[in-house]
Amino acid sequence: MKPEEGPIQESTKVSGFIRGISILVLVLRIIAVFGTLGSALAMGTTDETLPFSTQAVIFQAQYDDIPTFRFFVIANATVCGYLAVSIPMAIYHVIRVTSAKSRALLIFFDTIMLALLTAGASSATAVVYLAHKGNSSANWLAICRQFQNFCERITGSLIGSFAAVFIFVLLIPFSGLILTRQR
Amino acid sequence: MKPEEGPIQESTKVSGFIRGISILVLVLRIIAVFGTLGSALAMGTTDETLPFSTQAVIFQAQYDDIPTFRFFVIANATVCGYLAVSIPMAIYHVIRVTSAKSRALLIFFDTIMLALLTAGASSATAVVYLAHKGNSSANWLAICRQFQNFCERITGSLIGSFAAVFIFVLLIPFSGLILTRQR
Repeated sequence: MKPEEGPIQESTKVSGFIRGISILVLVLRIIAVFGTLGSALAMGTTDETLPFSTQAVIFQAQYDDIPTFRFFVIANATVCGYLAVSIPMAIYHVIRVTSAKSRALLIFFDTIMLALLTAGASSATAVVYLAHKGNSSANWLAICRQFQNFCERITGSLIGSFAAVFIFVLLIPFSGLILTRQR
Repeated sequence: MKPEEGPIQESTKVSGFIRGISILVLVLRIIAVFGTLGSALAMGTTDETLPFSTQAVIFQAQYDDIPTFRFFVIANATVCGYLAVSIPMAIYHVIRVTSAKSRALLIFFDTIMLALLTAGASSATAVVYLAHKGNSSANWLAICRQFQNFCERITGSLIGSFAAVFIFVLLIPFSGLILTRQR
């Protein structure tokens, strides 16, 4: 016969659940650090000089020719720094499962960082899309035909950033879930 | 002499605090409904036909010539619909201050909607910025010189959307704060 569960067993089960989620949160934060760092570095080191060019006007492409890409690098670097700082707190949450106020504080900062990172990634995506497809109504030509390496690089740099956005979309509800279980 | 506070007075104080925040959340959600609705409508009804034009190529500008603006309208309409649906739940939270699971559920959906809305608003902003300033490296000309009304309209339509983003950045930590106080 299964013994009846008392309040102590119940509390141990909840602690185990919270600790499990806290470890997952820690791992996700570490992945997101590398995602945003990779994105910032990949975009920040992108430039391409064409050895020759049919059009005299364009012969070099650099990420900081386009202000949106500069914003993308700043946003990713900021979020990467924040995530690195938040890791000790995430470790503390694995050890102390009852800490509620610091989790609520992380929800606040995570939300701001999610907005910042999504803004950076989306605005860069809009420009990358234009670089690939151009826009006939606005007479904007697709520059990717000329700058293939440049375009591959800037497109690739979006991946780490969107991975980190996805991770934040998980982290914030996880914190909320833990707060309900701590009652 | 001030009487000592018992657990009942303490609990009443906490309830009052949670109810106050819940009312604020409800008001903010209603404002965000109108913000996103206004943005979707302003962008979705934007088009401009020039009576005459020196360049034969461009003579009409419509929001759906640019896919990013179509995404902006879809994102705002989706978030507006979600916010409208969430209002009954926000009213329920004003009445029942102890409901924790439904608040955690709102954190989850609010986070997804924040990401969607920020993506729509930021990508549209990147294109609006290009329309205003152009980009000499990519040979993209500023189209706002020709389409002044169009540009004023699309720029204005961003306001409601960013106001709603700001509101979400408040709503999510508010839910987290309430969850810590319910313990």
